[in-house]
Amino acid sequence: MNLTYHEIDRMWTSWKHITKLDPDKKNTKKIIKTVINSGTDAIMISGTLGVNKENALRLYNMIKDYDIPKIQEPSSPYCILDDVDYIFVPSVLNSIDAKWICSYHKDWIRNQNFDMQWDKIIPEAYIVLNQNSAVCRLTRAIYDLDIKDIVAYSMMAERFFKFPIIYIEYSGSYGNKEVVKTVKESIKDAKLFYGGGINNKERANEMRKYATIVVGNVVYEDLDAYLSTI
Amino acid sequence: MNLTYHEIDRMWTSWKHITKLDPDKKNTKKIIKTVINSGTDAIMISGTLGVNKENALRLYNMIKDYDIPKIQEPSSPYCILDDVDYIFVPSVLNSIDAKWICSYHKDWIRNQNFDMQWDKIIPEAYIVLNQNSAVCRLTRAIYDLDIKDIVAYSMMAERFFKFPIIYIEYSGSYGNKEVVKTVKESIKDAKLFYGGGINNKERANEMRKYATIVVGNVVYEDLDAYLSTI
Repeated sequence: MNLTYHEIDRMWTSWKHITKLDPDKKNTKKIIKTVINSGTDAIMISGTLGVNKENALRLYNMIKDYDIPKIQEPSSPYCILDDVDYIFVPSVLNSIDAKWICSYHKDWIRNQNFDMQWDKIIPEAYIVLNQNSAVCRLTRAIYDLDIKDIVAYSMMAERFFKFPIIYIEYSGSYGNKEVVKTVKESIKDAKLFYGGGINNKERANEMRKYATIVVGNVVYEDLDAYLSTI
Repeated sequence: MNLTYHEIDRMWTSWKHITKLDPDKKNTKKIIKTVINSGTDAIMISGTLGVNKENALRLYNMIKDYDIPKIQEPSSPYCILDDVDYIFVPSVLNSIDAKWICSYHKDWIRNQNFDMQWDKIIPEAYIVLNQNSAVCRLTRAIYDLDIKDIVAYSMMAERFFKFPIIYIEYSGSYGNKEVVKTVKESIKDAKLFYGGGINNKERANEMRKYATIVVGNVVYEDLDAYLSTI
């Protein structure tokens, strides 16, 4: 699917608010409609567990005709859609397991027989910090990092690996504002994304000072609270 | 140490032949003199085992006054020298252990208190392929890769992580020419380096068609054979 003029106008680097929809959750027409009309900058199709090509495609088909940028953030090489506008590909830098840093990525390229749409692939340097989250358990992330570790990972992501996005991930809990602020101050060109526990206006306003905010779970819990995060 | 005009003239991207000297081996004056006058483009201070700041510095001091580019390729964050012209930092992409991909790198940045000489740090995407080598055992590299895996790793290194160097490492044995040729054809902007088993003119000429060659062990075995690789 080609980007419309409207979408090109909202290229990802200018986004301030992204809504994550999980293919493994119940995506009602009411949810989709609310999100589309909310003023969010983009919809990200993303989930840690239970995502496959079938349910990812089902969710994509619910949003494909709306004029809003559509991202997929795959959790494995086996659920990737062809027609989204962007594929944001996480690399979990604080995982102890190479699979989540780069070897799944190699598998994907191999499985695609080297035929990659590089223009729409945007690498994300994930730093996973909530030990109770599914993503932390799944990727075996070293979560007990102090601020110096987190800044060192961020600086490495930007300067050594040239990631365009650093993603501070507290999925399921609200993160430490000082961490997000300090990381923001320590990077130069990369965009900072923050996700985790944003379920009201106050939290949204606090984190958006430093990062593009990614709002997810609250969509499935309280649509009015979701709208207050915009 | 500032680069001389002579050195600036030989910036790393134009190098065709690099000589690796190992701080843990016996570096005689005769070896140093032969290497300096050989016509090699640069000297790389590098070894897998037994390298520490003390012996790395001792070797550096033997070469520091010669007008030749001096690189360090550290095997850990604990042996890094301040005064070399370049620090080529490996990331072993086919290791199963995050330490050798990115977590040692994070430790280094943290230990330096974020004060990094980024201009002289050049990231290298290592693909380690000789199962009998010390580097393969140390980094727990998955060595039984077929050509499609190796190309997928190379493409990922260049396009996803933006590595300026892809390093095909057969350390201790002579590699597969077809592998090196195919990788060369599958990358665009990254420089391809090849190391392993280059101990005569024929091998040097074969691999230099596709890659910058890195010559190491033969220096300690047969200086005439070394000179024939230039």
